[in-house]
Amino acid sequence: MHCQGCETMEETDTSKEGIEQWLRGLQDRICQRLEAADGKGKFEEDKWERPGGGGGRTRVLSEGAVIEKGGVSFSAVHGEVTERMAKGLKLEGKEFYATGVSIVMHPWNPMVPIIHMNVRYFELDSGVYWFGGGIDLTPHYVDERQAAWVHHQLAVACDKTDVAYYERFKTWADDYFYIKHRKETRGIGGIFFDRLGAEAGKTKVQLLELIQNIGDSFADIYTTLMAENGALPYQEAQREWQLLRRGRYAEFNLVWDAGTKFGLETDGRTESILMSLPPLARWTYDYQAEAGSAEERTMKLLRKGIDWRNWAPENANLAKI
Amino acid sequence: MHCQGCETMEETDTSKEGIEQWLRGLQDRICQRLEAADGKGKFEEDKWERPGGGGGRTRVLSEGAVIEKGGVSFSAVHGEVTERMAKGLKLEGKEFYATGVSIVMHPWNPMVPIIHMNVRYFELDSGVYWFGGGIDLTPHYVDERQAAWVHHQLAVACDKTDVAYYERFKTWADDYFYIKHRKETRGIGGIFFDRLGAEAGKTKVQLLELIQNIGDSFADIYTTLMAENGALPYQEAQREWQLLRRGRYAEFNLVWDAGTKFGLETDGRTESILMSLPPLARWTYDYQAEAGSAEERTMKLLRKGIDWRNWAPENANLAKI
Repeated sequence: MHCQGCETMEETDTSKEGIEQWLRGLQDRICQRLEAADGKGKFEEDKWERPGGGGGRTRVLSEGAVIEKGGVSFSAVHGEVTERMAKGLKLEGKEFYATGVSIVMHPWNPMVPIIHMNVRYFELDSGVYWFGGGIDLTPHYVDERQAAWVHHQLAVACDKTDVAYYERFKTWADDYFYIKHRKETRGIGGIFFDRLGAEAGKTKVQLLELIQNIGDSFADIYTTLMAENGALPYQEAQREWQLLRRGRYAEFNLVWDAGTKFGLETDGRTESILMSLPPLARWTYDYQAEAGSAEERTMKLLRKGIDWRNWAPENANLAKI
Repeated sequence: MHCQGCETMEETDTSKEGIEQWLRGLQDRICQRLEAADGKGKFEEDKWERPGGGGGRTRVLSEGAVIEKGGVSFSAVHGEVTERMAKGLKLEGKEFYATGVSIVMHPWNPMVPIIHMNVRYFELDSGVYWFGGGIDLTPHYVDERQAAWVHHQLAVACDKTDVAYYERFKTWADDYFYIKHRKETRGIGGIFFDRLGAEAGKTKVQLLELIQNIGDSFADIYTTLMAENGALPYQEAQREWQLLRRGRYAEFNLVWDAGTKFGLETDGRTESILMSLPPLARWTYDYQAEAGSAEERTMKLLRKGIDWRNWAPENANLAKI
């Protein structure tokens, strides 16, 4: 990254070692920020090795003041490209390397949204490489002002690389974080992209800076939401609603999330993959939110195509959904 | 079924109308038995129609005395064989017809096992038909004596049709109800089979009687377990263990269960498909049962190939696992 304010411009190291190093640092910085914002919980680290090559550091914070359960996971794995992987990738190669940071936070307070972040880098020994990632928000109760603010922050992060990216990645997130069997989005979306490589028309430095800007935006976004909503009062009925929404979150992750599916089917490290699952979740048969309730209002906002970036209180279309 | 004790032998009606009628009756009888055994909860019925043809009656009992959440679902659907279905079936046909009864019971008391039953019939307009089904048990704490008794009951039901069936279907259940990413079975298994049709070397009457015998065995098996274990004392820690095991149950159903997957991907009735999910479930990162605990003992019994039918207290191999 360009070192703003330095007299000399530091070179961005786009080697896999350089990217891995940056991601390790990101994990450290985010964990520190989250611990500080939580004020009570501490991350516990599990170091693990992958039999086929590489490993990771899974960090989980349980029963903090704001966070009920949250994970910030770093991994850097490498090994042989299996037949299954080659088929999935639609590419040939003998050796792969993949590194990334993944985050999911489940707060106690239903007024604080669930958040997910992932930034990742992948390369094959053939020289092919790409980046992927995104941040998306799953509020149990949608606060339109905050939803708009989060989308604005994500747009700012994307705009530094390409002003067309936010729109593109926002639509991608709407499509990706979609619970098909419920016909609802997982939350209010955010940004998502995959396999952004040499053919994207950007240098490797530019693409690395993109995931760096996204990674760096995470702590500001989520600690702001923790601070704004973490102490809001709530009732038992709202906690129950949160548990139902967490059930939907688990449904998405277990049924539709491509990364989870791939990991579980290819003998990945189960506990790290399923770190994203909620601490507690409920399923009630055919639950229907009451007409006119805050829960029903949230359900109406769990759909694709809402222009959150340009949301404003005076925007009657949105306010009256 | 042969009407035992009647002066005249009733013919078993193997037409789809006859099978459907019998399954409706099975749903009624099982719901009555479960309500009587629970003593408090009542099933609420949801009648639904499938846009493509047919429909069902989903019945759910919530917050009974013994049952926390349980569903007994009947459906009879028909319609066009889609391309996807034909690919899945590896068969051609224009019209299909499918009917069945599905059950999952989640009890309050961790000492009462979760149970699942399904019996089903499928036919194509080409004349091809088959039966499928099974019963399997997921104890939160394995009671070996009860596990053996349940397997014995299932063997008795299978033996009436073919003395080789129990072994075959028991192995099939071990393989089917397997949580691959956890390397553990869902529970202590039971019986499972699919696509048992004309090529099975049995008459249609014999195969229908097989699923009738299995269906008829369900209420005796589960109401016995409800009566034996429903009032056993338990601690908060055991309830917490139950919630973790329910998390595994949800993982199996959402990630691996072929029926659930097919239903969700082909726009089936979501609420009926996911009726099987637990009322409340927990995920704790990398939970490890304490050495020497009852929880650890149960984990050691969640594996394929245990000869439950021949289990006996004096069987040192099993008792000392």
